[in-house]
Amino acid sequence: MTKLMTPTETSDLLLKHDNFLLITHRRPDGDTLGSAGALALALKAKGKNAYLLKNKDTTPRYEIFVNNLWAPNDFSPDFVVSIDTASLDLFPENALSYKERVDLCIDHHPSNSKYASFLCLESHQASCGEVIYDILLAMNADISNDIATCIYVAISTDTGCFSFANTTSRTLYVASKLVEAGTNNGELNKYLFRTKTQSCVKIGSKVISSMEYHFDGKVAIAFITNDMIEEVGASEDDLDDIASLPTTVEGVCIGITIRELTSQSGSKISVRSSEPYNANEICGHFGGGGHVRAAGATVKKTVQEVRDELLEVLKKQF
Amino acid sequence: MTKLMTPTETSDLLLKHDNFLLITHRRPDGDTLGSAGALALALKAKGKNAYLLKNKDTTPRYEIFVNNLWAPNDFSPDFVVSIDTASLDLFPENALSYKERVDLCIDHHPSNSKYASFLCLESHQASCGEVIYDILLAMNADISNDIATCIYVAISTDTGCFSFANTTSRTLYVASKLVEAGTNNGELNKYLFRTKTQSCVKIGSKVISSMEYHFDGKVAIAFITNDMIEEVGASEDDLDDIASLPTTVEGVCIGITIRELTSQSGSKISVRSSEPYNANEICGHFGGGGHVRAAGATVKKTVQEVRDELLEVLKKQF
Repeated sequence: MTKLMTPTETSDLLLKHDNFLLITHRRPDGDTLGSAGALALALKAKGKNAYLLKNKDTTPRYEIFVNNLWAPNDFSPDFVVSIDTASLDLFPENALSYKERVDLCIDHHPSNSKYASFLCLESHQASCGEVIYDILLAMNADISNDIATCIYVAISTDTGCFSFANTTSRTLYVASKLVEAGTNNGELNKYLFRTKTQSCVKIGSKVISSMEYHFDGKVAIAFITNDMIEEVGASEDDLDDIASLPTTVEGVCIGITIRELTSQSGSKISVRSSEPYNANEICGHFGGGGHVRAAGATVKKTVQEVRDELLEVLKKQF
Repeated sequence: MTKLMTPTETSDLLLKHDNFLLITHRRPDGDTLGSAGALALALKAKGKNAYLLKNKDTTPRYEIFVNNLWAPNDFSPDFVVSIDTASLDLFPENALSYKERVDLCIDHHPSNSKYASFLCLESHQASCGEVIYDILLAMNADISNDIATCIYVAISTDTGCFSFANTTSRTLYVASKLVEAGTNNGELNKYLFRTKTQSCVKIGSKVISSMEYHFDGKVAIAFITNDMIEEVGASEDDLDDIASLPTTVEGVCIGITIRELTSQSGSKISVRSSEPYNANEICGHFGGGGHVRAAGATVKKTVQEVRDELLEVLKKQF
């Protein structure tokens, strides 16, 4: 049985223990890493041992915020806490040995599967970072510059720098307190949200130039060819956000990118959609799938063949 | 002689008068219109007459927030207030008849030329919207939903939805109070920041393609020509965020856009910089100004002439 806890009860529980291992989720984002980093730092400041379990998927982008907090191989915790992790499926490989003994889970996902002994679940919060902030307040923790920075990374990345609809009055209030505590928000925002490599900017521009509009602008199709990638020297990282480009255009309900693969493997389709259009269904036609709003497929056809077939498929919907 | 005023003194001064005409600057942005809109609404709620002088350059994007606040043609004010307008050069054509009788200027630009009888200049604030918020607080104004929305438009547009380096703890705090007061920030953010027209996306792509890198990639210069604007059918709204594009490239410390105006009026330079580079100083060379991190100038020279002169000016810094 999982016992639900308020942030204050969670703080009391934490203060009773001494050797903490914090688990972050698979493909860790700013929220899980920033939240875990902030909690580890606060617990250490209270004279405790607290580490993050090494998460090998951590990208350089976020590694810099937690790189001195990874647990030594021989660390033996007396209290295991999972952070921003809604279910055991999301545990990284090396965390699976702890799955029967998670003492506490701190989370904000309404879908949390209640796998931990204690659960501090604040599903009205935009980010787990805000839950951590409340716990640290209850703990009377000193919000150092480093702690504030970790929480800021958590909150800002989960809210698209305060632009997503999940951003609440409280989110902005906590952010203001973090900046007051010394977070260099200008520099962090530039690092996290406003910096692209030259090749990323160039490939984005090329993809936009390639964009076609169909069905009264409700469908946008963009193309990524090997020539384009080669010409600007784009890396896989540079192509990260490309699939979401077509749907940023006003009026576009179905945004599609078709990427040329090597001649043998054909093309990769990525579809993003808004209501009532189903990206999963569209990709299903090509043997792919995913979620209702975001899906993909790989097809042994040329970019042009895929485009023509897609338009045939979409014709039935418009 | 201009008398400097605190927000509280400004509030007292405003409450002594009854018929207000509010002047916004040329090519009005979210800050000047949102700030003026909020002040007009608050003064009306205090039983006064308050209007914005019609600003014909107002784009549809912002028009919706102030479209019931424009002054009737026969309105005769007893108190004239300019908002977010650093100098008389920035007055729209139809405001020029008021230039000798501006009673009060409310602004946040350090370069303010002190042309009004009274000046409430809070240059540490990211936006004029925050100054207006402080004045309304001093006035004990009820922050209605509409007022909160106008101030939110002002603050969020001048800070790139809280992502620019000018965003302070206070900026975020005020934003949190506005959301608390009923601003639908999620919807506004989608409208203001997360939706682009086809022509906006296209002009952005063209501007990126035009980008030149100088001084080891520390300086990026992008060009906006009338041909480019015509080719994609871009509106003024579409050009809103273009000036910040060059600085989104990794390693760029000074991001410059040079926009071609009509052959007679020359070119408009916009400079964005990060430490230690001073955008205000660079634009000062061309008779313009603004803030340390964001400034502009209008020059009676061709785009190419401006580019060459800029490179000469910058050579001294690198």
